Amino acid sequence: MVFGESVNFDGSTFRSSKVTPAGSSSQCIPEWSSSIGASTVQQTRRIYNDGSVRLRNPNIELMDQDILYHLALGSGSHDLVEMFGDVKFVCMGGTPKRMENFAHFIMDEIGYKLPAGTQLQDISAFSYRYSMYKVGPVLSISHGMGVPSLGILLHEMIKLMYHAKCKNPIFMRIGTCGGIGVEGGTVVITEDAVDGLLRSTHELAVLGKIVHRPAILDKRLVRELKSLASQDDPYDTIVGKTMCTSDFYEGQGRLDGAFCEFSETEKMEYLEKLHDFGVVNIEMECTIFAALTHYAGIKAAIVCVTLLDRLKGDQVMSPKEVMNEWQQRPQILVSRLIRKHLAQAGHLKALASLPSAIKSPRRFKLVQQESEAHE
Amino acid sequence: MVFGESVNFDGSTFRSSKVTPAGSSSQCIPEWSSSIGASTVQQTRRIYNDGSVRLRNPNIELMDQDILYHLALGSGSHDLVEMFGDVKFVCMGGTPKRMENFAHFIMDEIGYKLPAGTQLQDISAFSYRYSMYKVGPVLSISHGMGVPSLGILLHEMIKLMYHAKCKNPIFMRIGTCGGIGVEGGTVVITEDAVDGLLRSTHELAVLGKIVHRPAILDKRLVRELKSLASQDDPYDTIVGKTMCTSDFYEGQGRLDGAFCEFSETEKMEYLEKLHDFGVVNIEMECTIFAALTHYAGIKAAIVCVTLLDRLKGDQVMSPKEVMNEWQQRPQILVSRLIRKHLAQAGHLKALASLPSAIKSPRRFKLVQQESEAHE
Repeated sequence: MVFGESVNFDGSTFRSSKVTPAGSSSQCIPEWSSSIGASTVQQTRRIYNDGSVRLRNPNIELMDQDILYHLALGSGSHDLVEMFGDVKFVCMGGTPKRMENFAHFIMDEIGYKLPAGTQLQDISAFSYRYSMYKVGPVLSISHGMGVPSLGILLHEMIKLMYHAKCKNPIFMRIGTCGGIGVEGGTVVITEDAVDGLLRSTHELAVLGKIVHRPAILDKRLVRELKSLASQDDPYDTIVGKTMCTSDFYEGQGRLDGAFCEFSETEKMEYLEKLHDFGVVNIEMECTIFAALTHYAGIKAAIVCVTLLDRLKGDQVMSPKEVMNEWQQRPQILVSRLIRKHLAQAGHLKALASLPSAIKSPRRFKLVQQESEAHE
Repeated sequence: MVFGESVNFDGSTFRSSKVTPAGSSSQCIPEWSSSIGASTVQQTRRIYNDGSVRLRNPNIELMDQDILYHLALGSGSHDLVEMFGDVKFVCMGGTPKRMENFAHFIMDEIGYKLPAGTQLQDISAFSYRYSMYKVGPVLSISHGMGVPSLGILLHEMIKLMYHAKCKNPIFMRIGTCGGIGVEGGTVVITEDAVDGLLRSTHELAVLGKIVHRPAILDKRLVRELKSLASQDDPYDTIVGKTMCTSDFYEGQGRLDGAFCEFSETEKMEYLEKLHDFGVVNIEMECTIFAALTHYAGIKAAIVCVTLLDRLKGDQVMSPKEVMNEWQQRPQILVSRLIRKHLAQAGHLKALASLPSAIKSPRRFKLVQQESEAHE
C-alpha cells in the first residue's frame, strides 16, 4: 500500500487534480464497480427485495452489538426495531434548534398525536453531538456543519435503518445556503452535487489512499419535489447544481474571512464561472449526503433556502425574523412530499383518525392562558 | 484560472497525490511564502508589536461592520473590545456540554468569581451553532466535529481577537481521540499534525484551486505542556504525531461503519504503518487548527485524551462515567498552563483577592440543601 495513491473502486488510478465536471463523472468513477479489497467483501445488493436497507459491510452482522456512539444508541442496549421500525422519512438539517422546530411542524402537518402527558424528547441528547426527534414515521435530526459531521451521522443513520429493519426510507436534507444569481429566500432543490473542483464526487482518504464515490441524487425525487412547489408560494423554488465546500469563507470565495488572498475581481470571475456552470447555490454537505445515500441505495434529496445572493455580497445580514421565515420554506416543501407519500399509503388517514387529547384547540389555548395568569 | 489546478502560496504547483510526510513539508510548502493574488494583498506581519492579532485580510478594516454570523456577534452591534479585550486563552472542544463543564472547572481553578446573582451565559446561544462561555481571561467554546466546523469557528475567533484588540492570545484545543498503541485515558499533546496522507498540511479548494497551508504547532508550548504533566497523575501524558481525518469510520480504518471495503488484516497493516510513522492518535480537527492558528501567528496547542486503543478495537465502549473522567484530563493539563501564565503575570493573585459572595463553601452547600428540602 502506498500513501497518497489515488484509486477508484475499480482499482484504476485517479488523478485528484484532474477536472471531472458533473455529467462526465461516469467515465472515471464507475457507479457500481467492484470495491477495493473486493476479495474480502461479498458482492452486495443494496436493498433486500422487501425494501429493507442492506449494509455494504459484512462485519456488522458478525458483531455482538453495534454501538451507534454519536447517537447514544446501541443494537444490544436498545430494541431498535421497536423504536425505529416504522420510520419512512429521515430529515436532517444543520442546527438542533431548526430540527426541533421541524419535528413540531411536521407533527402538525401529518396530524401526529402524542399520548396525553408526553412531549417530544431528544433521543440523542446524551451523545451531546446530534439532536434527534421522532414523530411517528418521521425522524428529524441535526447534523452539524460540514462533510465530516454529516458523514458520521450518515454512517450511523444507515446502520440504524439496517438494525431497525426500516423499509425504503427516504433521506432528505433541509438546509441553508448561499445563492448564486438568485434572491435570498429562494428554495433550491439540488439536481447535481459537485465539490469545490466541480466534480460530482465525494473524496475521502481510506487507509492512506484517496477514494472517490459518485455523488448522485434521485432524479425522480427531484422532479417530485419540484412538482410540489405551488404557484401561490410567495417565493421561487428552483432546481439546479449545488456546490459543496469545506469552508465558509475562503472556500466559498468570501472576502470577509480572517484570511483573504484574492481580489474582488477574482472572486466575481469565480462566482460567474460557477453560475455559467449551472451552480445555483453553495453549501457544505451535499457531496457526502448524495454519495453515501447513493452508495447505500437510499433515495435522497436536498432542499435548501438561500440566505443571500453571493453575486451581491458575502455577509449574511437579513434580520433573524426574516431568516427564520425563510428557513421554514424547505420544511414546507419536504412536508408536502411526506404528506403525499403518507396519503398514498393510507397512513395519513390512519394518523388523523387517532384520538387526540385536545378537543378544541381554541379552548385549549384559553385554558393555558388562564392557568398562566393565576399566580 | 483552471479548476482543479493545485498551487502553493509561492505559485508553484503541488501534486496533491504526492506523499509529503511530516518533517519534510518545508520542501514543498514554503512556510511564509507570498500568497496567491499577492498583488492585491499587502505583505502583512502577523502580529503588531504590541501583541495584538493582525488579520491577513485587508478587506476587514474597510468594512462598515463585520458580522460574526456563527457566533451571534458583530463589530457594529457589540463593543467587542469591552466584552473580549481581556481574553488571553481561547479553549476549544467538540461538544457544548464539555466546554460548559470546562468553563465551570476553569472558574474554580483560577479563582474567578461571578458577581452576586449572576451565572455563566452561552454568549453564542442565538447562533444555534457553537456555545461560548467567558470566564475572565478564558474563553471556552465548542467547535462541533470535523475540519469545516472548526474552520468556520477559527475564522470568526481570529477576527474576534482582532476586533477585540486581544494581546498574544493562546488557542488550545481540548479534545477526544482514538489512540494507536496507547491505553484508553492517555493524554496526548500533539507535536505534529498530519492529514490522512501523512502530510503536515491543511488542504483547501479556494476559487477552484487546491491551496495548502502548513500545519505547524508551537513547539515551545508543547514542551511547556509536557512539563506540566505530573508524575502523580494516575495516567500517562505523551507527546506525538496526531493524524486528522475527515471521517470517523472508513477514514480512520474502522471495520464498523455502514460501509467497509477492506479486511481486518489491511486495517491492522495500516494502523501499524501509522504507529511506525510516530502517529499516536487520530482525531478530526488537528490540521486546520494548526494551520489557521499558525497562519494567523497565534500560539496554539492540541491536548486530547484517547478513548480507546485502536490496535485493540474500533468501538468506543467504556462506560460514560469512565469517559467523563478521562475527558477531564486534558482540561486539567490546560488549566495548569493557564494558572501558570496567569500567576507569572500576577493576574492569579489579583483574581484571588476579589471579594466573593460565598464566605463558607460548606455552609453555602448546607443552606442550598436545606432550602431544597423545604417544599
